[in-house]
Amino acid sequence: MPVPEFETVSAAKAFGGVQSVIRHRSRETGTSMRFAAFLPPQAETTPVPVLWFLAGLTCTEDNFTVKAGAQRVAAELGLALIAPDTSPRGDGVPDDPDGAYDFGLGAGFYVDATEAPWSTHYRMRSYLERELPELVAATLPIDPTRQAISGHSMGGHGALTLALRTPDRFRSVSAFAPIASPMNCPWGHKALSGYLGADRDAWRQYDACALIADGARVPAILVDQGTADGFLAEQLKPDLLEAACAGTGIQLTLRRQDGYDHSYFFIASFIEDHLRWHARALAA
Amino acid sequence: MPVPEFETVSAAKAFGGVQSVIRHRSRETGTSMRFAAFLPPQAETTPVPVLWFLAGLTCTEDNFTVKAGAQRVAAELGLALIAPDTSPRGDGVPDDPDGAYDFGLGAGFYVDATEAPWSTHYRMRSYLERELPELVAATLPIDPTRQAISGHSMGGHGALTLALRTPDRFRSVSAFAPIASPMNCPWGHKALSGYLGADRDAWRQYDACALIADGARVPAILVDQGTADGFLAEQLKPDLLEAACAGTGIQLTLRRQDGYDHSYFFIASFIEDHLRWHARALAA
Repeated sequence: MPVPEFETVSAAKAFGGVQSVIRHRSRETGTSMRFAAFLPPQAETTPVPVLWFLAGLTCTEDNFTVKAGAQRVAAELGLALIAPDTSPRGDGVPDDPDGAYDFGLGAGFYVDATEAPWSTHYRMRSYLERELPELVAATLPIDPTRQAISGHSMGGHGALTLALRTPDRFRSVSAFAPIASPMNCPWGHKALSGYLGADRDAWRQYDACALIADGARVPAILVDQGTADGFLAEQLKPDLLEAACAGTGIQLTLRRQDGYDHSYFFIASFIEDHLRWHARALAA
Repeated sequence: MPVPEFETVSAAKAFGGVQSVIRHRSRETGTSMRFAAFLPPQAETTPVPVLWFLAGLTCTEDNFTVKAGAQRVAAELGLALIAPDTSPRGDGVPDDPDGAYDFGLGAGFYVDATEAPWSTHYRMRSYLERELPELVAATLPIDPTRQAISGHSMGGHGALTLALRTPDRFRSVSAFAPIASPMNCPWGHKALSGYLGADRDAWRQYDACALIADGARVPAILVDQGTADGFLAEQLKPDLLEAACAGTGIQLTLRRQDGYDHSYFFIASFIEDHLRWHARALAA
Protein backbone atom coordinates (compact mmCIF):
# COMPACT_ATOMS: atom_id res chain seq x y z
CA MET A 1 0.00 0.00 0.00
CA PRO A 2 1.56 3.34 -0.97
CA VAL A 3 2.13 5.85 1.80
CA PRO A 4 -0.20 8.81 1.36
CA GLU A 5 1.35 12.25 0.89
CA PHE A 6 -0.10 13.48 4.18
CA GLU A 7 -2.40 11.58 6.51
CA THR A 8 -3.74 12.23 9.99
CA VAL A 9 -3.16 8.96 11.83
CA SER A 10 -4.90 10.02 15.05
CA ALA A 11 -6.41 13.11 16.63
CA ALA A 12 -7.59 13.61 20.19
CA LYS A 13 -8.87 16.67 21.98
CA ALA A 14 -6.54 17.72 24.77
CA PHE A 15 -6.77 20.80 27.00
CA GLY A 16 -9.17 22.41 24.54
CA GLY A 17 -6.76 21.88 21.63
CA VAL A 18 -6.06 18.93 19.38
CA GLN A 19 -3.20 16.43 19.65
CA SER A 20 -2.58 14.74 16.30
CA VAL A 21 -0.15 12.26 14.82
CA ILE A 22 0.54 12.83 11.13
CA ARG A 23 2.18 10.51 8.64
CA HIS A 24 3.65 11.76 5.40
CA ARG A 25 5.96 10.75 2.58
CA SER A 26 9.38 12.34 2.99
CA ARG A 27 11.49 13.25 0.00
CA GLU A 28 14.57 13.66 2.23
CA THR A 29 14.48 10.27 3.97
CA GLY A 30 12.71 8.46 1.14
CA THR A 31 10.41 6.87 3.71
CA SER A 32 7.13 7.39 5.45
CA MET A 33 7.70 9.71 8.43
CA ARG A 34 5.49 10.46 11.41
CA PHE A 35 5.32 13.51 13.63
CA ALA A 36 3.07 14.63 16.45
CA ALA A 37 1.42 18.04 16.40
CA PHE A 38 -0.44 19.75 19.22
CA LEU A 39 -2.53 22.73 18.21
CA PRO A 40 -3.76 24.91 21.08
CA PRO A 41 -7.32 26.24 21.05
CA GLN A 42 -6.04 29.63 19.83
CA ALA A 43 -5.07 27.99 16.51
CA GLU A 44 -8.74 27.78 15.58
CA THR A 45 -8.78 31.51 14.97
CA THR A 46 -5.21 32.64 14.37
CA PRO A 47 -1.79 31.29 13.36
CA VAL A 48 0.16 30.40 16.50
CA PRO A 49 3.87 30.25 17.36
CA VAL A 50 5.45 26.80 17.43
CA LEU A 51 7.86 24.93 19.68
CA TRP A 52 9.76 22.05 18.13
CA PHE A 53 10.76 19.29 20.52
CA LEU A 54 13.39 16.76 19.43
CA ALA A 55 13.45 13.47 21.33
CA GLY A 56 16.31 11.27 22.47
CA LEU A 57 17.70 7.84 21.65
CA THR A 58 15.09 5.07 21.14
CA CYS A 59 12.23 7.59 21.04
CA THR A 60 9.55 8.23 18.44
CA GLU A 61 7.19 11.18 18.03
CA ASP A 62 5.19 9.62 20.85
CA ASN A 63 7.43 9.94 23.92
CA PHE A 64 7.35 13.69 24.42
CA THR A 65 3.73 13.81 23.30
CA VAL A 66 2.52 11.25 25.80
CA LYS A 67 4.88 11.67 28.75
CA ALA A 68 5.96 15.30 29.09
CA GLY A 69 2.60 16.84 29.96
CA ALA A 70 3.42 19.86 27.80
CA GLN A 71 -0.02 20.37 26.27
CA ARG A 72 -1.54 21.97 29.37
CA VAL A 73 0.75 24.99 29.39
CA ALA A 74 0.99 25.07 25.59
CA ALA A 75 -2.80 25.43 25.50
CA GLU A 76 -2.64 28.25 28.02
CA LEU A 77 0.13 30.03 26.12
CA GLY A 78 -1.26 29.44 22.63
CA LEU A 79 1.77 27.47 21.52
CA ALA A 80 1.81 24.67 18.93
CA LEU A 81 4.07 21.70 19.70
CA ILE A 82 5.73 19.64 16.97
CA ALA A 83 7.46 16.40 17.97
CA PRO A 84 9.22 14.63 15.06
CA ASP A 85 10.50 11.07 14.99
CA THR A 86 14.20 10.45 15.68
CA SER A 87 15.15 8.54 12.52
CA PRO A 88 13.79 7.16 9.28
CA ARG A 89 12.12 3.77 9.64
CA GLY A 90 10.66 1.06 7.46
CA ASP A 91 11.59 -1.39 4.74
CA GLY A 92 15.06 -0.84 3.39
CA VAL A 93 16.22 1.49 6.17
CA PRO A 94 19.43 0.01 7.60
CA ASP A 95 19.85 -0.39 11.35
CA ASP A 96 22.83 -0.85 13.64
CA PRO A 97 24.31 -4.24 12.70
CA ASP A 98 24.19 -5.31 16.36
CA GLY A 99 20.76 -3.80 16.93
CA ALA A 100 22.25 -1.36 19.43
CA TYR A 101 19.95 1.39 20.71
CA ASP A 102 22.44 4.19 20.08
CA PHE A 103 22.82 4.00 16.29
CA GLY A 104 20.48 3.50 13.35
CA LEU A 105 16.75 3.25 14.01
CA GLY A 106 15.66 5.66 16.73
CA ALA A 107 19.13 7.22 16.71
CA GLY A 108 19.42 9.46 13.66
CA PHE A 109 21.37 12.05 15.65
CA TYR A 110 19.85 14.84 13.52
CA VAL A 111 22.58 14.59 10.87
CA ASP A 112 22.69 14.17 7.09
CA ALA A 113 24.70 10.96 6.80
CA THR A 114 27.42 10.87 4.15
CA GLU A 115 28.61 7.28 4.63
CA ALA A 116 27.04 4.26 2.94
CA PRO A 117 24.64 2.64 3.64
CA TRP A 118 23.29 5.40 5.91
CA SER A 119 23.41 8.31 3.47
CA THR A 120 20.36 7.18 1.48
CA HIS A 121 17.78 7.51 4.25
CA TYR A 122 19.46 9.09 7.29
CA ARG A 123 18.86 12.74 6.38
CA MET A 124 17.31 14.05 9.58
CA ARG A 125 19.13 17.39 9.33
CA SER A 126 17.62 18.31 5.98
CA TYR A 127 14.31 16.81 7.02
CA LEU A 128 14.17 19.13 10.04
CA GLU A 129 15.85 22.15 8.49
CA ARG A 130 13.82 22.23 5.30
CA GLU A 131 11.21 19.62 4.55
CA LEU A 132 9.23 19.33 7.77
CA PRO A 133 9.07 23.07 8.55
CA GLU A 134 7.81 23.69 5.01
CA LEU A 135 5.22 20.96 5.36
CA VAL A 136 4.10 22.21 8.76
CA ALA A 137 3.86 25.80 7.55
CA ALA A 138 1.85 24.71 4.52
CA THR A 139 -0.60 22.46 6.37
CA LEU A 140 -1.01 23.71 9.94
CA PRO A 141 -2.11 27.12 11.29
CA ILE A 142 1.31 28.08 12.65
CA ASP A 143 3.25 31.31 12.26
CA PRO A 144 6.66 30.39 10.79
CA THR A 145 8.13 33.71 11.91
CA ARG A 146 7.73 32.60 15.53
CA GLN A 147 9.58 29.30 16.06
CA ALA A 148 11.38 27.95 19.09
CA ILE A 149 13.15 24.64 19.65
CA SER A 150 13.94 22.30 22.52
CA GLY A 151 14.88 18.68 22.97
CA HIS A 152 16.07 15.94 25.28
CA SER A 153 19.43 14.15 25.34
CA MET A 154 20.23 13.35 21.67
CA GLY A 155 17.34 15.71 20.90
CA GLY A 156 18.91 18.38 23.11
CA HIS A 157 21.98 18.06 20.92
CA GLY A 158 19.69 18.31 17.90
CA ALA A 159 17.95 21.42 19.21
CA LEU A 160 21.18 23.20 20.12
CA THR A 161 22.90 22.44 16.80
CA LEU A 162 19.86 23.30 14.68
CA ALA A 163 19.45 26.60 16.50
CA LEU A 164 23.16 27.43 16.25
CA ARG A 165 23.26 26.64 12.51
CA THR A 166 20.01 28.50 11.71
CA PRO A 167 19.72 31.25 14.35
CA ASP A 168 17.40 33.32 12.19
CA ARG A 169 14.79 30.60 12.23
CA PHE A 170 14.44 30.22 15.99
CA ARG A 171 13.73 32.94 18.52
CA SER A 172 14.77 30.71 21.40
CA VAL A 173 16.38 27.37 22.20
CA SER A 174 16.43 25.19 25.29
CA ALA A 175 17.37 21.64 26.15
CA PHE A 176 16.92 18.95 28.76
CA ALA A 177 20.05 16.93 29.53
CA PRO A 178 21.53 17.54 26.07
CA ILE A 179 24.54 15.73 24.68
CA ALA A 180 26.58 18.90 24.90
CA SER A 181 29.46 17.79 22.71
CA PRO A 182 29.01 14.61 20.62
CA MET A 183 32.67 14.91 19.54
CA ASN A 184 33.63 14.26 23.14
CA CYS A 185 31.49 11.33 24.25
CA PRO A 186 30.98 7.67 23.28
CA TRP A 187 27.44 8.10 21.89
CA GLY A 188 28.64 10.95 19.69
CA HIS A 189 31.82 9.22 18.53
CA LYS A 190 29.85 6.21 17.41
CA ALA A 191 27.16 8.23 15.65
CA LEU A 192 29.35 10.82 13.97
CA SER A 193 32.01 8.35 12.80
CA GLY A 194 29.31 5.97 11.59
CA TYR A 195 27.17 8.49 9.75
CA LEU A 196 29.92 10.90 8.63
CA GLY A 197 33.17 8.93 8.48
CA ALA A 198 36.51 9.56 10.13
CA ASP A 199 37.07 13.21 9.17
CA ARG A 200 36.44 15.08 12.40
CA ASP A 201 36.16 18.42 10.61
CA ALA A 202 32.88 17.18 9.15
CA TRP A 203 31.61 16.50 12.67
CA ARG A 204 31.86 20.08 13.88
CA GLN A 205 28.55 21.22 12.37
CA TYR A 206 26.90 18.60 14.60
CA ASP A 207 28.52 19.60 17.86
CA ALA A 208 27.11 22.57 19.79
CA CYS A 209 30.43 23.36 21.44
CA ALA A 210 32.38 23.17 18.16
CA LEU A 211 29.78 25.33 16.42
CA ILE A 212 30.15 27.97 19.12
CA ALA A 213 33.95 27.75 18.92
CA ASP A 214 33.62 28.25 15.17
CA GLY A 215 31.58 31.41 15.71
CA ALA A 216 27.93 30.33 15.76
CA ARG A 217 25.80 32.41 18.12
CA VAL A 218 22.35 32.47 19.65
CA PRO A 219 21.31 35.08 22.21
CA ALA A 220 20.47 32.65 25.02
CA ILE A 221 20.20 28.99 25.93
CA LEU A 222 18.23 27.41 28.79
CA VAL A 223 19.43 23.98 29.90
CA ASP A 224 18.10 21.77 32.69
CA GLN A 225 20.29 18.86 33.78
CA GLY A 226 19.48 16.37 36.52
CA THR A 227 22.31 15.68 38.93
CA ALA A 228 21.26 12.02 39.31
CA ASP A 229 21.29 11.45 35.54
CA GLY A 230 23.20 8.23 34.89
CA PHE A 231 24.57 9.60 31.58
CA LEU A 232 25.79 12.91 32.99
CA ALA A 233 29.51 12.35 33.39
CA GLU A 234 30.24 10.11 30.41
CA GLN A 235 27.83 11.28 27.71
CA LEU A 236 26.19 14.64 28.45
CA LYS A 237 28.95 16.86 29.91
CA PRO A 238 27.13 20.18 30.34
CA ASP A 239 30.34 21.72 31.65
CA LEU A 240 31.68 21.61 28.08
CA LEU A 241 28.75 23.75 26.95
CA GLU A 242 29.33 26.08 29.87
CA ALA A 243 32.98 26.47 28.85
CA ALA A 244 32.08 26.91 25.18
CA CYS A 245 29.61 29.72 25.95
CA ALA A 246 31.92 31.57 28.33
CA GLY A 247 32.92 34.94 26.92
CA THR A 248 30.90 34.52 23.73
CA GLY A 249 27.93 36.66 24.69
CA ILE A 250 25.64 33.60 24.65
CA GLN A 251 23.58 33.80 27.83
CA LEU A 252 23.59 30.23 29.08
CA THR A 253 21.26 29.41 31.95
CA LEU A 254 22.36 25.95 33.09
CA ARG A 255 20.28 24.65 35.96
CA ARG A 256 21.59 21.58 37.76
CA GLN A 257 18.43 20.00 39.17
CA ASP A 258 19.22 18.14 42.34
CA GLY A 259 18.34 14.44 42.34
CA TYR A 260 16.63 14.30 38.94
CA ASP A 261 17.47 11.52 36.45
CA HIS A 262 17.30 11.22 32.65
CA SER A 263 13.62 10.23 32.44
CA TYR A 264 10.50 11.99 31.24
CA PHE A 265 9.57 12.53 34.90
CA PHE A 266 12.47 14.99 34.90
CA ILE A 267 11.23 16.63 31.70
CA ALA A 268 7.64 16.78 32.99
CA SER A 269 8.86 18.46 36.17
CA PHE A 270 10.45 21.38 34.31
CA ILE A 271 8.69 21.59 30.93
CA GLU A 272 6.46 24.39 32.21
CA ASP A 273 9.50 26.60 32.87
CA HIS A 274 10.78 25.94 29.34
CA LEU A 275 7.44 26.65 27.70
CA ARG A 276 7.08 29.96 29.54
CA TRP A 277 10.66 30.87 28.71
CA HIS A 278 10.06 30.19 25.01
CA ALA A 279 6.70 31.99 25.06
CA ARG A 280 8.40 35.14 26.34
CA ALA A 281 10.90 35.05 23.48
CA LEU A 282 8.16 34.30 20.96
CA ALA A 283 6.04 37.20 22.18
CA ALA A 284 8.91 39.70 22.06
CA MET B 1 14.42 -16.66 40.62
CA PRO B 2 12.02 -16.17 43.55
CA VAL B 3 10.05 -12.95 43.64
CA PRO B 4 11.14 -10.86 46.61
CA GLU B 5 8.53 -9.96 49.21
CA PHE B 6 8.79 -6.26 48.37
CA GLU B 7 11.16 -4.65 45.89
CA THR B 8 11.50 -1.15 44.46
CA VAL B 9 11.86 -1.72 40.71
CA SER B 10 12.46 1.92 39.83
CA ALA B 11 12.42 5.33 41.47
CA ALA B 12 12.64 8.74 39.84
CA LYS B 13 12.37 12.20 41.28
CA ALA B 14 9.33 14.03 39.92
CA PHE B 15 8.02 17.45 40.90
CA GLY B 16 10.04 17.33 44.10
CA GLY B 17 8.58 13.95 45.08
CA VAL B 18 9.43 10.40 44.11
CA GLN B 19 7.72 8.22 41.52
CA SER B 20 8.39 4.52 42.20
CA VAL B 21 7.34 1.20 40.81
CA ILE B 22 7.18 -1.56 43.41
CA ARG B 23 7.00 -5.31 42.92
CA HIS B 24 5.79 -7.65 45.63
CA ARG B 25 4.58 -11.16 46.19
CA SER B 26 0.80 -11.27 46.51
CA ARG B 27 -0.93 -13.84 48.69
CA GLU B 28 -4.28 -13.05 47.04
CA THR B 29 -3.28 -13.51 43.42
CA GLY B 30 -0.48 -15.98 44.11
CA THR B 31 1.74 -14.03 41.73
CA SER B 32 4.23 -11.21 41.63
CA MET B 33 2.30 -7.92 41.42
CA ARG B 34 3.50 -4.43 40.55
CA PHE B 35 2.12 -1.06 41.50
CA ALA B 36 3.25 2.51 41.00
CA ALA B 37 3.49 4.90 43.93
CA PHE B 38 4.05 8.65 43.82
CA LEU B 39 5.03 10.25 47.08
CA PRO B 40 4.82 14.04 47.17
CA PRO B 41 7.58 16.06 48.85
CA GLN B 42 5.39 16.47 51.95
CA ALA B 43 5.71 12.72 52.61
CA GLU B 44 9.30 13.24 53.70
CA THR B 45 8.09 14.79 56.92
CA THR B 46 4.52 13.62 57.50
CA PRO B 47 2.09 10.87 56.46
CA VAL B 48 0.07 12.06 53.48
CA PRO B 49 -3.41 11.28 52.15
CA VAL B 50 -3.59 8.89 49.23
CA LEU B 51 -5.51 8.71 45.96
CA TRP B 52 -5.88 5.29 44.37
CA PHE B 53 -6.23 5.27 40.61
CA LEU B 54 -7.49 2.12 38.89
CA ALA B 55 -6.70 1.77 35.20
CA GLY B 56 -8.69 0.41 32.29
CA LEU B 57 -8.54 -2.56 29.93
CA THR B 58 -5.06 -3.46 28.63
CA CYS B 59 -3.34 -1.15 31.13
CA THR B 60 -0.68 -1.79 33.73
CA GLU B 61 0.49 0.36 36.66
CA ASP B 62 2.34 2.39 34.07
CA ASN B 63 -0.37 4.07 31.99
CA PHE B 64 -1.77 6.49 34.55
CA THR B 65 1.68 7.04 36.00
CA VAL B 66 3.29 8.02 32.71
CA LYS B 67 0.43 9.60 30.76
CA ALA B 68 -1.96 11.41 33.11
CA GLY B 69 0.38 14.14 34.34
CA ALA B 70 -1.08 13.80 37.84
CA GLN B 71 2.15 14.19 39.81
CA ARG B 72 2.38 17.96 39.37
CA VAL B 73 -0.83 18.75 41.23
CA ALA B 74 -0.39 15.80 43.62
CA ALA B 75 2.95 17.33 44.64
CA GLU B 76 1.31 20.69 45.18
CA LEU B 77 -1.53 19.19 47.22
CA GLY B 78 0.60 16.73 49.18
CA LEU B 79 -1.24 13.71 47.84
CA ALA B 80 0.22 10.24 47.31
CA LEU B 81 -0.88 8.39 44.17
CA ILE B 82 -1.13 4.60 44.01
CA ALA B 83 -1.70 2.99 40.60
CA PRO B 84 -2.12 -0.81 40.76
CA ASP B 85 -1.95 -3.24 37.86
CA THR B 86 -5.21 -4.42 36.28
CA SER B 87 -4.80 -8.20 36.63
CA PRO B 88 -2.46 -10.89 37.86
CA ARG B 89 0.24 -11.81 35.34
CA GLY B 90 2.98 -14.37 34.92
CA ASP B 91 3.52 -18.10 34.57
CA GLY B 92 0.40 -20.12 35.20
CA VAL B 93 -2.02 -17.18 35.03
CA PRO B 94 -4.66 -18.07 32.42
CA ASP B 95 -5.58 -15.59 29.70
CA ASP B 96 -8.54 -15.20 27.39
CA PRO B 97 -8.46 -18.27 25.12
CA ASP B 98 -8.61 -16.02 22.05
CA GLY B 99 -6.16 -13.49 23.47
CA ALA B 100 -8.89 -10.84 23.48
CA TYR B 101 -8.05 -7.54 25.21
CA ASP B 102 -11.23 -7.46 27.27
CA PHE B 103 -10.81 -10.58 29.42
CA GLY B 104 -7.96 -12.22 31.30
CA LEU B 105 -4.59 -10.47 31.38
CA GLY B 106 -4.99 -6.71 31.71
CA ALA B 107 -8.71 -7.17 32.27
CA GLY B 108 -9.22 -8.39 35.84
CA PHE B 109 -12.33 -6.22 36.20
CA TYR B 110 -11.59 -5.79 39.92
CA VAL B 111 -13.52 -8.95 40.88
CA ASP B 112 -12.77 -12.08 42.91
CA ALA B 113 -13.36 -14.76 40.27
CA THR B 114 -15.32 -17.83 41.36
CA GLU B 115 -15.17 -19.82 38.12
CA ALA B 116 -12.31 -22.14 37.15
CA PRO B 117 -9.67 -21.60 35.93
CA TRP B 118 -9.86 -17.90 36.88
CA SER B 119 -10.60 -18.25 40.58
CA THR B 120 -7.04 -19.22 41.52
CA HIS B 121 -5.32 -15.99 40.50
CA TYR B 122 -7.97 -13.45 39.51
CA ARG B 123 -8.60 -11.98 42.97
CA MET B 124 -8.25 -8.27 42.26
CA ARG B 125 -11.11 -7.34 44.61
CA SER B 126 -9.46 -8.85 47.68
CA TYR B 127 -6.08 -7.63 46.49
CA LEU B 128 -7.37 -4.05 46.41
CA GLU B 129 -9.74 -4.23 49.35
CA ARG B 130 -7.33 -5.86 51.78
CA GLU B 131 -3.85 -6.87 50.74
CA LEU B 132 -2.52 -3.84 48.88
CA PRO B 133 -3.91 -1.20 51.28
CA GLU B 134 -2.33 -3.08 54.18
CA LEU B 135 0.97 -3.33 52.35
CA VAL B 136 0.90 0.34 51.39
CA ALA B 137 0.02 1.45 54.91
CA ALA B 138 2.81 -0.71 56.33
CA THR B 139 5.53 0.39 53.92
CA LEU B 140 4.79 3.93 52.72
CA PRO B 141 4.29 7.18 54.66
CA ILE B 142 0.57 7.47 53.93
CA ASP B 143 -2.31 8.19 56.27
CA PRO B 144 -4.82 5.33 55.87
CA THR B 145 -7.58 7.41 57.42
CA ARG B 146 -7.45 9.70 54.38
CA GLN B 147 -8.01 7.66 51.22
CA ALA B 148 -9.73 8.58 47.96
CA ILE B 149 -10.23 6.58 44.77
CA SER B 150 -10.62 7.22 41.07
CA GLY B 151 -10.22 5.29 37.86
CA HIS B 152 -10.72 5.13 34.13
CA SER B 153 -13.12 2.98 32.13
CA MET B 154 -12.87 -0.53 33.65
CA GLY B 155 -10.99 1.21 36.45
CA GLY B 156 -13.79 3.75 36.81
CA HIS B 157 -16.08 0.78 37.37
CA GLY B 158 -13.53 -0.55 39.85
CA ALA B 159 -13.34 2.76 41.73
CA LEU B 160 -17.11 3.21 41.93
CA THR B 161 -17.78 -0.35 43.09
CA LEU B 162 -14.94 -0.38 45.63
CA ALA B 163 -16.13 2.91 47.09
CA LEU B 164 -19.76 1.81 47.19
CA ARG B 165 -18.87 -1.48 48.90
CA THR B 166 -16.47 0.08 51.42
CA PRO B 167 -17.69 3.67 51.90
CA ASP B 168 -15.94 3.99 55.27
CA ARG B 169 -12.57 3.52 53.65
CA PHE B 170 -12.79 6.31 51.08
CA ARG B 171 -13.60 9.94 51.69
CA SER B 172 -14.26 10.57 48.01
CA VAL B 173 -14.66 8.80 44.68
CA SER B 174 -14.46 9.96 41.09
CA ALA B 175 -14.17 8.37 37.68
CA PHE B 176 -13.22 9.07 34.08
CA ALA B 177 -15.48 7.44 31.50
CA PRO B 178 -16.43 4.58 33.85
CA ILE B 179 -18.25 1.44 32.79
CA ALA B 180 -21.31 2.56 34.69
CA SER B 181 -23.13 -0.76 34.68
CA PRO B 182 -21.18 -3.88 33.65
CA MET B 183 -24.41 -5.92 33.87
CA ASN B 184 -25.70 -3.85 30.97
CA CYS B 185 -22.88 -3.79 28.45
CA PRO B 186 -20.88 -6.30 26.35
CA TRP B 187 -17.55 -5.82 28.20
CA GLY B 188 -19.30 -6.42 31.51
CA HIS B 189 -21.35 -9.40 30.33
CA LYS B 190 -18.23 -11.14 29.11
CA ALA B 191 -16.21 -10.40 32.24
CA LEU B 192 -18.86 -11.10 34.84
CA SER B 193 -20.15 -14.29 33.21
CA GLY B 194 -16.58 -15.49 32.65
CA TYR B 195 -15.23 -14.75 36.11
CA LEU B 196 -18.42 -15.34 38.13
CA GLY B 197 -20.64 -17.69 36.11
CA ALA B 198 -24.22 -17.34 34.96
CA ASP B 199 -25.90 -16.32 38.24
CA ARG B 200 -26.59 -12.63 37.77
CA ASP B 201 -27.25 -12.10 41.46
CA ALA B 202 -23.54 -12.66 42.03
CA TRP B 203 -22.76 -9.88 39.56
CA ARG B 204 -24.55 -7.14 41.50
CA GLN B 205 -21.66 -6.46 43.90
CA TYR B 206 -19.59 -5.55 40.80
CA ASP B 207 -22.06 -3.14 39.24
CA ALA B 208 -22.22 0.44 40.56
CA CYS B 209 -25.84 0.89 39.51
CA ALA B 210 -26.94 -2.41 41.07
CA LEU B 211 -25.06 -1.63 44.28
CA ILE B 212 -26.87 1.71 44.53
CA ALA B 213 -30.20 0.03 43.78
CA ASP B 214 -29.41 -2.43 46.58
CA GLY B 215 -28.81 0.41 49.02
CA ALA B 216 -25.10 1.23 48.83
CA ARG B 217 -24.34 4.92 49.33
CA VAL B 218 -21.49 7.40 49.05
CA PRO B 219 -21.98 11.12 49.64
CA ALA B 220 -20.84 12.27 46.20
CA ILE B 221 -19.40 11.09 42.87
CA LEU B 222 -17.54 13.15 40.26
CA VAL B 223 -17.57 11.71 36.73
CA ASP B 224 -16.06 13.14 33.56
CA GLN B 225 -17.17 11.60 30.28
CA GLY B 226 -16.02 12.65 26.81
CA THR B 227 -18.79 13.09 24.27
CA ALA B 228 -16.56 11.79 21.44
CA ASP B 229 -15.68 8.61 23.35
CA GLY B 230 -16.12 5.68 20.98
CA PHE B 231 -17.27 3.41 23.83
CA LEU B 232 -19.85 5.80 25.22
CA ALA B 233 -23.11 4.42 23.87
CA GLU B 234 -22.40 0.70 23.89
CA GLN B 235 -20.14 0.16 26.92
CA LEU B 236 -20.03 3.13 29.30
CA LYS B 237 -23.63 4.41 29.57
CA PRO B 238 -23.26 7.18 32.16
CA ASP B 239 -26.99 7.81 31.92
CA LEU B 240 -27.54 4.56 33.83
CA LEU B 241 -25.44 5.92 36.70
CA GLU B 242 -27.38 9.17 36.54
CA ALA B 243 -30.67 7.26 36.80
CA ALA B 244 -29.33 5.04 39.59
CA CYS B 245 -28.26 8.04 41.69
CA ALA B 246 -31.49 9.98 41.20
CA GLY B 247 -33.39 10.34 44.45
CA THR B 248 -30.80 8.43 46.50
CA GLY B 249 -29.06 11.42 48.05
CA ILE B 250 -25.83 10.60 46.19
CA GLN B 251 -24.60 13.88 44.73
CA LEU B 252 -23.52 12.90 41.23
CA THR B 253 -21.61 15.51 39.25
CA LEU B 254 -21.56 14.11 35.71
CA ARG B 255 -19.69 16.38 33.31
CA ARG B 256 -20.10 15.61 29.61
CA GLN B 257 -16.89 17.01 28.11
CA ASP B 258 -17.50 18.14 24.57
CA GLY B 259 -15.34 16.47 21.92
CA TYR B 260 -13.09 14.43 24.25
CA ASP B 261 -12.40 10.76 23.55
CA HIS B 262 -11.44 7.76 25.72
CA SER B 263 -7.68 8.43 25.76
CA TYR B 264 -5.27 9.60 28.42
CA PHE B 265 -5.27 13.02 26.72
CA PHE B 266 -8.83 13.28 28.05
CA ILE B 267 -7.72 12.18 31.53
CA ALA B 268 -4.75 14.55 31.50
CA SER B 269 -7.05 17.42 30.57
CA PHE B 270 -9.23 16.98 33.66
CA ILE B 271 -7.09 15.18 36.25
CA GLU B 272 -6.33 18.46 38.00
CA ASP B 273 -10.03 19.03 38.70
CA HIS B 274 -10.31 15.53 40.15
CA LEU B 275 -7.22 15.88 42.34
CA ARG B 276 -8.45 19.19 43.76
CA TRP B 277 -11.91 17.72 44.33
CA HIS B 278 -10.43 14.77 46.22
CA ALA B 279 -8.04 17.00 48.17
CA ARG B 280 -10.97 19.05 49.45
CA ALA B 281 -12.70 15.90 50.70
CA LEU B 282 -9.48 14.58 52.22
CA ALA B 283 -8.85 17.85 54.05
CA ALA B 284 -12.36 18.02 55.49
